Amino acid sequence: MENEDFLVRFGKRIRHLRNAKGISQEALGLEVDLEQTYISDIERGVRNVGVRSVHAIATALGVTMAELFQGVE
Amino acid sequence: MENEDFLVRFGKRIRHLRNAKGISQEALGLEVDLEQTYISDIERGVRNVGVRSVHAIATALGVTMAELFQGVE
Repeated sequence: MENEDFLVRFGKRIRHLRNAKGISQEALGLEVDLEQTYISDIERGVRNVGVRSVHAIATALGVTMAELFQGVE
Repeated sequence: MENEDFLVRFGKRIRHLRNAKGISQEALGLEVDLEQTYISDIERGVRNVGVRSVHAIATALGVTMAELFQGVE
């Protein structure tokens, strides 16, 4: 359960950063070569996304990996 | 190629933190329920590991996710 909670918190963080940047799930997906539905799954905490894609998402959102995971435990 | 470099840098960071804690790949693997060979693959940058396992590794190494990714870009 702890791991599920982590994915949910991680997803919320991605959603927060994406909204702060003012871009849609579709626009983010296009930037990182992932489908909008996959971005939606990540944000709902139902995808155990690989670090490679996380790095692409961080780059697209204009944050460092350390910033992306700030407060996500 | 950028992504490959990222995985290599990420793997080196894991190795650095594991050595700093003074535990073996096998001991870390036992803590996070991954085989020693998988830990070795991560440290060599040839595994696109999921964030769930990264979180388990961070917990086992006694660092936050933000700390784990500090300087890894």
